[in-house]
Amino acid sequence: MNIYDSDAVDGGGKSAAAAEPTAAAGPAPGPSAEGASAKPKKSERTVETAESMAAKQRDISISEFFAKNRHLLGFDSPRKALLTTVKEAIDNALDACEEAAILPELYVELSPVEGETDRYRVVVEDNGPGIVKEQIGKIFGKLLYGSKFHRLRQSRGQQGIGISAAGMYGQLTTGRPMIITTRTGKGRPAFRVEMRIDTLKNQPEILKQEQLDWDRDRGTRVEIELAGKYLKGRQSVDEYLALTAVANPHCEIAYKPPGEDVVIYKRGTTEHPVQPKEILPHPHGIELGVLIKLLKISPSRTVAGALKESFSRVTDKVAEDICAAAKVKPDAKPGTVGVREADALFKAMQAAKVMAPPTDCLVPVGQDLILEGMKKEVDADFFAAITRSPKVYRGNPFCIEVGIGLGGNLPADDLARCMRFANRVPLQFQPGACAITKAVLSVDWRNYGLQQSKGALPTGPVVILVHVASVWVPFTSESKEAIASYDEIVAEMRLGLMECGRKLGIFLNRRKREADELKKRSYIDKYIPQIGIALQNILDLNKQKREEAVTSLKDVLERSRKL
Amino acid sequence: MNIYDSDAVDGGGKSAAAAEPTAAAGPAPGPSAEGASAKPKKSERTVETAESMAAKQRDISISEFFAKNRHLLGFDSPRKALLTTVKEAIDNALDACEEAAILPELYVELSPVEGETDRYRVVVEDNGPGIVKEQIGKIFGKLLYGSKFHRLRQSRGQQGIGISAAGMYGQLTTGRPMIITTRTGKGRPAFRVEMRIDTLKNQPEILKQEQLDWDRDRGTRVEIELAGKYLKGRQSVDEYLALTAVANPHCEIAYKPPGEDVVIYKRGTTEHPVQPKEILPHPHGIELGVLIKLLKISPSRTVAGALKESFSRVTDKVAEDICAAAKVKPDAKPGTVGVREADALFKAMQAAKVMAPPTDCLVPVGQDLILEGMKKEVDADFFAAITRSPKVYRGNPFCIEVGIGLGGNLPADDLARCMRFANRVPLQFQPGACAITKAVLSVDWRNYGLQQSKGALPTGPVVILVHVASVWVPFTSESKEAIASYDEIVAEMRLGLMECGRKLGIFLNRRKREADELKKRSYIDKYIPQIGIALQNILDLNKQKREEAVTSLKDVLERSRKL
Repeated sequence: MNIYDSDAVDGGGKSAAAAEPTAAAGPAPGPSAEGASAKPKKSERTVETAESMAAKQRDISISEFFAKNRHLLGFDSPRKALLTTVKEAIDNALDACEEAAILPELYVELSPVEGETDRYRVVVEDNGPGIVKEQIGKIFGKLLYGSKFHRLRQSRGQQGIGISAAGMYGQLTTGRPMIITTRTGKGRPAFRVEMRIDTLKNQPEILKQEQLDWDRDRGTRVEIELAGKYLKGRQSVDEYLALTAVANPHCEIAYKPPGEDVVIYKRGTTEHPVQPKEILPHPHGIELGVLIKLLKISPSRTVAGALKESFSRVTDKVAEDICAAAKVKPDAKPGTVGVREADALFKAMQAAKVMAPPTDCLVPVGQDLILEGMKKEVDADFFAAITRSPKVYRGNPFCIEVGIGLGGNLPADDLARCMRFANRVPLQFQPGACAITKAVLSVDWRNYGLQQSKGALPTGPVVILVHVASVWVPFTSESKEAIASYDEIVAEMRLGLMECGRKLGIFLNRRKREADELKKRSYIDKYIPQIGIALQNILDLNKQKREEAVTSLKDVLERSRKL
Repeated sequence: MNIYDSDAVDGGGKSAAAAEPTAAAGPAPGPSAEGASAKPKKSERTVETAESMAAKQRDISISEFFAKNRHLLGFDSPRKALLTTVKEAIDNALDACEEAAILPELYVELSPVEGETDRYRVVVEDNGPGIVKEQIGKIFGKLLYGSKFHRLRQSRGQQGIGISAAGMYGQLTTGRPMIITTRTGKGRPAFRVEMRIDTLKNQPEILKQEQLDWDRDRGTRVEIELAGKYLKGRQSVDEYLALTAVANPHCEIAYKPPGEDVVIYKRGTTEHPVQPKEILPHPHGIELGVLIKLLKISPSRTVAGALKESFSRVTDKVAEDICAAAKVKPDAKPGTVGVREADALFKAMQAAKVMAPPTDCLVPVGQDLILEGMKKEVDADFFAAITRSPKVYRGNPFCIEVGIGLGGNLPADDLARCMRFANRVPLQFQPGACAITKAVLSVDWRNYGLQQSKGALPTGPVVILVHVASVWVPFTSESKEAIASYDEIVAEMRLGLMECGRKLGIFLNRRKREADELKKRSYIDKYIPQIGIALQNILDLNKQKREEAVTSLKDVLERSRKL
């Protein structure tokens, strides 16, 4: 946690804080005695040498790194910190419920800490499978630990950082430990654990652990006290929960905002979402280095076997073809393959015809549910949505869904609003960094009847929703706020946006035509009677003749208008 | 390096790849036998339990994490990978030269690898202080290792990730090791080391190490072979080096692009840049957790002493005031301070009047050099630049510099071009994610005579340069391509931009006035003689009288125009 003071890091001892930073040339006394950062001398220029620099070089612990860079994890402001903490806890809760085939029921509470300003206690409780006692410490007290990183399967969490980071932020800003309560089933004990992260070692430090009576049969409750700020509106916890309910209709959420009554987001369906399948990497999406490693550790007895076992869509025939093209014997031992041969295999794999990866690893929301969700959240006249068929980037299947809403009570003079989702999680920050924004900006919306200035989002009463589902969403930072602009992903988004855009264009065109028609009709209705009166005067018609003339004129004009 | 296969991670053994993923409830046999990810079953829904999930949870090595997330480090495409590799090597070279007070001379070479497509060998060589033999492995073969993280001082590198990540990317895409050659001075041996990163352990693996004759007395040479793509234009290595030369006029660069002659960027000055000072953290910029840790490990015998020793601008008086306000005895032992007392101290520190942090830790480029640099790089008529006085975010001093160029041969119909720099390093990617872009977008440039649509950059022949110098630049990701939007930083940028904008506005106003005047003059010149002829005809004047009339008319009009 000591993110500034360099002498606290390696040994962590109380050594030599009075020493000046090494200034002279020549070998330094060695890493332990040196590097104590007392107040630096104000006077002369310090000239470092290879030796004096060597004495200052040391390990940086992953927790120290993220503590200092906490904006990378979404903790750059008290307001965002509150949201990120809720978000990370809910990601974990929903993932765990889905893996255990449990319909999720969540309870979320934000309460101001008494006697403090801008401090909150966040509680997130689920009815998930619970956590076995031995794992509690590591899951909540260690960055880069988890089950989702080493597999290819669609889930909300994927890094093994989020919830530990939230606990670390709480501890950094309030000094208070995290409190975890969990139980894995009826008849089993419930545990309550108070813990901290030892940031120098990136290890959990259990302060207190006890068995307790819990009214829940099964589930996990996370409590974190942190420096936060509660506001409503855009980018708030409230917005996040509303959007989460939209994208997860199988989930029930009870939410207690600070000083207000509990709000319930009822589930819209009791059907479980389709369970995403885990897949193997696709041969077209790996790097040479990965192949070398896979061959080295493969349990298969032959190269062909190793290829078949390690990759999706590699059949006996494909494996043999690859070996033949690479001039590597298919029955060679995988462990004996050298770098040069592996390189040949790698190139042969890229050139080989291989089926696209299986896509049952992806569970898009579906265009009907997107339409429904948008109608709940957005007050518009026109809606369109599409789910594209899956594509692949770097060997990872992904699927794009797009929705558009227009008109109604949406503000007509503002820039379009973008609603961004990744694996059903709403993205509320860093729109400028996101591939979704890039794709929306790259489409010429004037083709579809909207106004748009160069380099800007379209203007008008429009909401654009994009959802990316993938076994591995490439986020631009650990805070998972924006999606990296891989070409394949941006291209696919563009296609989805244009497909929806065309539907929008057809609607706007029709509406314009109808408006024109209405205008013309109103001209006819307005002026023909006047012409009738004029004709009556000029030709000295009686009332009946006049009306006949008016009717036949109207007929003629209607007919000519329809042509 | 095995970034996909989950069974290769913990034990790394050849165990049980034929097993199906655990599907049933009940305790799993344990982490070793389980988690082998063979082809997943296609059929039924898998239902996980706390126990089966526990068996899948494991450590994620920092190198694995970054290998899978290589876009976080700037390696998302072959083109960017080439640039990032050059950039990381140059950051290190320039930092080392400056610390050792050596005027940097760099040699950069990109050469295509024979017999391969889209593979390059990158060579970056410097005349810096060199690296002691024992440190070579760690510096280049370990992520999160270095001297710059644990100090507050302006430098290009700060994370201890960059160059090792470049080596890791090379190894991942080509299977080839990095080659480092280094020597710490005349009369000392030069070493050549071939090495890789063991990504599972995040440790260097030395393949070959030898002494050699080197024609250089002192310096370091880095060679990395990688999958890359060489293109010219925006976001290229060429652009990066040109911009680097602009922001580092004391540096000489020889650059050999693929298949072309060497280009030399001569140094513009032989003066060393002012050396930035290292500072202690400021009491207004730390978190409670950091204070607790500092007190725990402080070598001081009293709390007051610990405050004074650990923070900048804390005098005896300030330390005593803080203790008094917090009701903590100033002569208490720092190690005995509890969380509650620390919290009181922390709040007292935030409330205390403390001088702003010293700013000699910052070395801005300076407005004259920015003007000069822009004039070299940008073909414009008008230039303005300013260096703002230093400010503070999260306790870290920072300084904003802004330059604007307008007119000349800049394209008149395009959006403005933004040139972004952080600690003298050009930022070429992710403009949308960057606080600089956010600040530029937030200014109403129409106030200064430019065109601008809602939500877009201004349009016109304009270049806007922003440089952020800080002891700790908060980047939005490890690739250091964009600056995080801390409020204090964005606000300060806005002020700088508006200050330059006003100069621009004055220039554009004057130009407009002059143009109007010219137009009026040309009217006078054109029409007055005609009026003279008309008067001559009407009043029957002779030629002389006519000319007198014309002259006096011109006088009258000029005078009225000037009023």
